[in-house]
Amino acid sequence: MYMPSKQYKLPREEYVAGNGLLHRRTFLTSSIAFFSVASSSLVPNKLIGQENYPVSMLLPGAPLSGYGLRSKFESHVQRYVGTTAGTTGAGSSRTPLEKLSGIITPNGLHFERHHSGIPDIDPEQHQLLIHGLVDRPLVFDINTLLKYPMVSRTQYIECSGNSRPNLASTAPDLNCGQIHGMISCCEWTGIPISVLLQEAGIKSNAKWVLAEGADAAAMTRSIPLSKAMDDTMIALFQNGEALRPENGYPIRVILPGYEGNISVKWLRRLMLSDTPIMTKDETSKYTDLQKDGRSEIFTLEMGVKSVITSPSGGQFMQHRGIYEIKGLAWSGTSKIKRVDVSADGGLTWAEAMLSNPILSKSLTQFRLPWDWNGQHAIIMSRAIDEDGNAQPTRDAFIDEKGLQVNYHNNIIQSWEVSSQGEITNTYV
Amino acid sequence: MYMPSKQYKLPREEYVAGNGLLHRRTFLTSSIAFFSVASSSLVPNKLIGQENYPVSMLLPGAPLSGYGLRSKFESHVQRYVGTTAGTTGAGSSRTPLEKLSGIITPNGLHFERHHSGIPDIDPEQHQLLIHGLVDRPLVFDINTLLKYPMVSRTQYIECSGNSRPNLASTAPDLNCGQIHGMISCCEWTGIPISVLLQEAGIKSNAKWVLAEGADAAAMTRSIPLSKAMDDTMIALFQNGEALRPENGYPIRVILPGYEGNISVKWLRRLMLSDTPIMTKDETSKYTDLQKDGRSEIFTLEMGVKSVITSPSGGQFMQHRGIYEIKGLAWSGTSKIKRVDVSADGGLTWAEAMLSNPILSKSLTQFRLPWDWNGQHAIIMSRAIDEDGNAQPTRDAFIDEKGLQVNYHNNIIQSWEVSSQGEITNTYV
Repeated sequence: MYMPSKQYKLPREEYVAGNGLLHRRTFLTSSIAFFSVASSSLVPNKLIGQENYPVSMLLPGAPLSGYGLRSKFESHVQRYVGTTAGTTGAGSSRTPLEKLSGIITPNGLHFERHHSGIPDIDPEQHQLLIHGLVDRPLVFDINTLLKYPMVSRTQYIECSGNSRPNLASTAPDLNCGQIHGMISCCEWTGIPISVLLQEAGIKSNAKWVLAEGADAAAMTRSIPLSKAMDDTMIALFQNGEALRPENGYPIRVILPGYEGNISVKWLRRLMLSDTPIMTKDETSKYTDLQKDGRSEIFTLEMGVKSVITSPSGGQFMQHRGIYEIKGLAWSGTSKIKRVDVSADGGLTWAEAMLSNPILSKSLTQFRLPWDWNGQHAIIMSRAIDEDGNAQPTRDAFIDEKGLQVNYHNNIIQSWEVSSQGEITNTYV
Repeated sequence: MYMPSKQYKLPREEYVAGNGLLHRRTFLTSSIAFFSVASSSLVPNKLIGQENYPVSMLLPGAPLSGYGLRSKFESHVQRYVGTTAGTTGAGSSRTPLEKLSGIITPNGLHFERHHSGIPDIDPEQHQLLIHGLVDRPLVFDINTLLKYPMVSRTQYIECSGNSRPNLASTAPDLNCGQIHGMISCCEWTGIPISVLLQEAGIKSNAKWVLAEGADAAAMTRSIPLSKAMDDTMIALFQNGEALRPENGYPIRVILPGYEGNISVKWLRRLMLSDTPIMTKDETSKYTDLQKDGRSEIFTLEMGVKSVITSPSGGQFMQHRGIYEIKGLAWSGTSKIKRVDVSADGGLTWAEAMLSNPILSKSLTQFRLPWDWNGQHAIIMSRAIDEDGNAQPTRDAFIDEKGLQVNYHNNIIQSWEVSSQGEITNTYV
């Protein structure tokens, strides 16, 4: 085994925080590779002789196709599905964050949250109604909407119930996607909702917009008009192609940085009003129960958050030496400014490298090299956004909100590494 | 029919070039919507009565799933497949650019170009050999590569044979994707190839890197070492998930801005050498036959280019009035600086709006409003990159290179609009 990481002694100044964290530019400033476990026991020349060609080189391959599917060897990469007892369509499926790489979530793995299954909508039959406090009610069909000017934006959507498993009193034995996978990020393309509302004519007393989905749950939420007129769109495309059925085909609302539930899917109706409508999903659900027994409503903006996706729960550290800690960070109000990483349970922190492009209300990748000494360690990440918001510790979160709050959990995630290299979810 | 676009008279200063082209900020500075063909003949209140609920609201929808597929109503959106006679796996399939929106190409619709089909590779069996002018030959398996530090970049890949149909002496009756669809753009994530080469140790006389694919055509190309050390990666992820089989699963080279063929798929071998290897795909093919009968070789950088995707060939203009002209632009060397649009066959031009983010060697969207008067028109786009390269007219291209060149056609595309609203491919 050829393992230069064992032979190379890093200079002391590369170590920037406790328990082996290395400076974020270590990989960029050194020509030494740290990760190799490449084997030199094979005689390379054998690999290029004809007798060693793989079977894929000996026979013609599969034909071209109109629409490609993934390799059968990737079929284990699946969303984590959980449904309400007695239903097949009420529940959620979570993106396997720890198996993906990049900021784009492929359409087939975008998380789902449905309240009564995925409607099967023929776009030729679908209509969007705009009514209420408008000068003239309008009805649009999809072919009409396709003629409008559109914008494209890469935005995340996060369910406000994301990371709820970690509100349990003891840390559940779950992996990264199972805990945090109700966040996904796509390039969405659609019509600024302001264009359509202005066309209908907004009456001066209008302050809210009710959005209703065409699903059997009639998912209905009240959107502040100011947000609708700001950066909200009616999306028709997701990563270039038409929306997927589980993401609102043929049209959905995208409210960047707001809790996912309000980005109503299968949109059929926008009704302008002077007050919020107080639907069940903004009164009995999707409100935040506080320590004093009262509930906060319309807590729409998602907080600043991050999670280490590798190494993470359920994975294994196979040897001492240098690893790349990597993960995702996001904020519901702005761009990510900084992510700090700790390898000693929060005693000391080092600044991670952020990958470009850093976009507002989008996922941002972070990375930091770590020289693991083979001993027990707790790794954590802490994101800070351009508005100065920082992720709270578990204690600070509980102090302010308690654990019954159910939504908007942005507590710093901690992963525990045992001296055997096992990684598990833990609380600090 | 409620059609404000008929009622609204635009100020004269909004018209910035011949035949109805409007200033690129027209949509931003006016609150008037231009596109509505929304019908007010329906009584909106009927739509919200229970008796008018669509069937999708009356019964629970489909269940959640581990990996989502697209709606059956989108099955007509397909790549345009063409194969060499007598084969199923030698040929190309083109991205239907005119049916997509955004800069990301969904993985299922990325163009294909294979020379002997798509190999079916088990990643557990696949190896990458680095040998030749190196200090120590290395062999990597996929699990090892997955441990390396990675970068993500949104880059296009364009076959150098893209747009070849328009090198015919008369304009073929083809649509946008059929002519120009051998370009696609994804977020690629992988290992900078420089990291792996440095680990093997680059001998001082090495100047080229041979890349070999594990397909039955043994696709083999010589890469300049300077490019390999610059921005080249070995990609493992495409739009977040593992590469698709037709895009090189489990690993491929990505050489940003270079002709697609050299971004070798199903990569199994990198061999460093002091000269290019002169493989068949860089001598008998993928060379540019000049007017004097000589061929240029290693014309690797792709040119600056753009194409209007809407309105485009095969589409119809349904009424006089205001349309959004939109399209894609790209450059093989830098970022797009400007795109100009003409509606009078190139007599006058107006600057289009570019959509953010504008990334180097990536697709960039452009848009410009157009007030079509219902008469014959020829619409064109002309891209200029940050290096000052501009797309040539057809005459200038032929003057310099002739029409037998076969590759690297970046001639300005012209679409002809008849007074009946039919749109066809044309030459100017």
